[in-house]
Amino acid sequence: MTEITQLALRARDASRALAKTSSAVRDTALRAMAAALVAHTDRILAANALDMEAAREAGTPGPLLDRLMLDEDRIVAIAGSVDALALQADPIGEVVSGHRMPNGIWLQQVRVPLGVVAMIYEARPNVTADAAALCVKTGNAAILRGGSLAIHSCLTISDILSEAATASGIPEHAIQSITSVDRAATDELMRLHGLIDVLIPRGGAGLIRNVVANATVPVIETGVGNCHIYVHSAAQLDMAVSIVLNAKCQRPGVCNSAESLLVDESVCEAYLPPILRALTAAGVEVRGDERTLSLDVEGVVPATEDDWGTEYLDLKISVAVVAGLDEAIAHVNRYGTRHSEAIVTEDYDAARRFLDEVDAAAVYVNASTRFTDGGEFGLGAEIGISTQKLHARGPMGLTALTSTKFLAMGNGQVRP
Amino acid sequence: MTEITQLALRARDASRALAKTSSAVRDTALRAMAAALVAHTDRILAANALDMEAAREAGTPGPLLDRLMLDEDRIVAIAGSVDALALQADPIGEVVSGHRMPNGIWLQQVRVPLGVVAMIYEARPNVTADAAALCVKTGNAAILRGGSLAIHSCLTISDILSEAATASGIPEHAIQSITSVDRAATDELMRLHGLIDVLIPRGGAGLIRNVVANATVPVIETGVGNCHIYVHSAAQLDMAVSIVLNAKCQRPGVCNSAESLLVDESVCEAYLPPILRALTAAGVEVRGDERTLSLDVEGVVPATEDDWGTEYLDLKISVAVVAGLDEAIAHVNRYGTRHSEAIVTEDYDAARRFLDEVDAAAVYVNASTRFTDGGEFGLGAEIGISTQKLHARGPMGLTALTSTKFLAMGNGQVRP
Repeated sequence: MTEITQLALRARDASRALAKTSSAVRDTALRAMAAALVAHTDRILAANALDMEAAREAGTPGPLLDRLMLDEDRIVAIAGSVDALALQADPIGEVVSGHRMPNGIWLQQVRVPLGVVAMIYEARPNVTADAAALCVKTGNAAILRGGSLAIHSCLTISDILSEAATASGIPEHAIQSITSVDRAATDELMRLHGLIDVLIPRGGAGLIRNVVANATVPVIETGVGNCHIYVHSAAQLDMAVSIVLNAKCQRPGVCNSAESLLVDESVCEAYLPPILRALTAAGVEVRGDERTLSLDVEGVVPATEDDWGTEYLDLKISVAVVAGLDEAIAHVNRYGTRHSEAIVTEDYDAARRFLDEVDAAAVYVNASTRFTDGGEFGLGAEIGISTQKLHARGPMGLTALTSTKFLAMGNGQVRP
Repeated sequence: MTEITQLALRARDASRALAKTSSAVRDTALRAMAAALVAHTDRILAANALDMEAAREAGTPGPLLDRLMLDEDRIVAIAGSVDALALQADPIGEVVSGHRMPNGIWLQQVRVPLGVVAMIYEARPNVTADAAALCVKTGNAAILRGGSLAIHSCLTISDILSEAATASGIPEHAIQSITSVDRAATDELMRLHGLIDVLIPRGGAGLIRNVVANATVPVIETGVGNCHIYVHSAAQLDMAVSIVLNAKCQRPGVCNSAESLLVDESVCEAYLPPILRALTAAGVEVRGDERTLSLDVEGVVPATEDDWGTEYLDLKISVAVVAGLDEAIAHVNRYGTRHSEAIVTEDYDAARRFLDEVDAAAVYVNASTRFTDGGEFGLGAEIGISTQKLHARGPMGLTALTSTKFLAMGNGQVRP
């Protein structure tokens, strides 16, 4: 039996013991886990320094280095998220539905943990703490696999959390990390059908593609966001400028930022130049279609077919002029990744049709796509943003890490 | 572009048009589809005769022939199920949750169709009608692939339903069947990631294993049921006999029938002989462990390790004596397929622990496992019984064929 299979079997055993713990035990453990992170700041910073040094030597670009870097403040913030989970309501044990069957059986459907949750993610050490804490909160055993770039930070955080959890009455092996950075380990993990109840990849399009192509365990796809802002002919120009700038520039490296701008032909001469000038003034590289280029706004470069399907995660935007609502909806449904899509309009029917016909996890009228977020949507903790339709769609709160089971209490009923 | 990809692209286009139809249009179409099945009885029977003839020539066993066979009464019954769907509430458009965000955005989460639903199933012609009707009801485009044994019946039913649906205002290509019985076609179908929103295999363990191993599209696993009846030391003997007989014999070929019997050591000498005699009298082959064999009940043969994990779907049962509740729960969690599990007991704490600790879609106290069924559980139409934990677990009603999306209506909000 391989090491990964053994680890998964330990996780399954732990998940069964964990499912029997009370909310009080799990919440106490979360507080202890948060305190342990702060108490072991030095140990975490030492591990992070190793990762940072290796990353610098490997010539890792600045934004990635920034996502990898930990300092005291960031560790306090990470611990704060773990601690805050203890205050949230426990989804486990909720009676979701139920009734007395005509034959007298008492039937109830109750919320239960999924069992064993595996997460594969890239170079963000904070995801280790988030994932472990979310799993403890929801009574799931966690198998974590951080990116190789953050491996020392992730393993150290995982060890600290596991020790603190076990000391608080959480079963041993409820939080485990895969120590090997070998890809064979993750390939094996994603094929442990029957042992892993769900695998959640968090990272770039390449990671998610690999998981989708190779996993035999159930997967929740997250994150890739080729989001559009569509400026309809009945838009207010100042609102359009403000929403486009916010959606593109407020935090360009995240999945709910805008990557593409569509503008109605009938208003493009009046609206596009001020919007594009605002974008270039904010340092955004604008890639326009032919009609956009014909407006001769300084700094606009030609877009290629590839641009329409590209998630830049950077200060870049593609711009296309469309004939109207139908073409805009068709473009979004063709090139979008079903994440977050927005229309800017004062026209009631255009708003209604865009909401109805665009196929995405979150569809906006007159607001920035940047709001697609568990915290903003009031879901509390966020596990990620699902871009698939099965199980969970859009920002996922704690219930996304749960399943249900039917309990049937009879007194001798048999089926006639 | 291959034929299967073209078919899936047509399905996706149809799904977008279908999502815009009203409940009234979809319910009217369901009534027309039901009427068309009855009106075309001769055409269906002629197609079924071809399948029956080929099946007989191939030496297909009797029970399978019976599942394949259609007659006027069965067609009326199939049409009745389609018609009945029109009376059920439409899950599409339900506002699942919502609130005004602190910044003034109106947020609502609404129920929407999944999009394109693919079903691969074995030799039951009625599944074609069920699946097509469930998809029309829930606004999903259906791609159907019946078993090769039932291919003429399935394609004829699919054609009749598709014609009737289109004539009632359902978009063309909303119901499509794969005409090739070549396995390459299904292998391709299950890898059309991005075009198929969910694939539901319905059939034997081999079909489901193949789908799980090869699919890149989201899958809902259904059906395999290695279900146990555990007779606890505090069981009433007459109730135990009645539940074991019902769960094993009332319809042995279905997934919620019992395949294995566990009995507490402390009562096995008193309880097992009458239970086993009742089983053998009902024509059941009993395969016992050593302790069971030691009771010297006539007709009991030895069980092998393989028996504990086998879903017979036949008049056979494996029997093991266990030390008590802990061993029973461990046995069920080890060998069960997480479908339906029952304890027979008058002991409150044993009942409570079995309900809590057994990991299955449906857990019973003092009732037959045969009740795990959408109709019995009051869910209305049933798509199948999910044995996975993601998206849906246990009997699946109409909502299992839906997803949700967030609609956010603002008036210029941007993220600070």
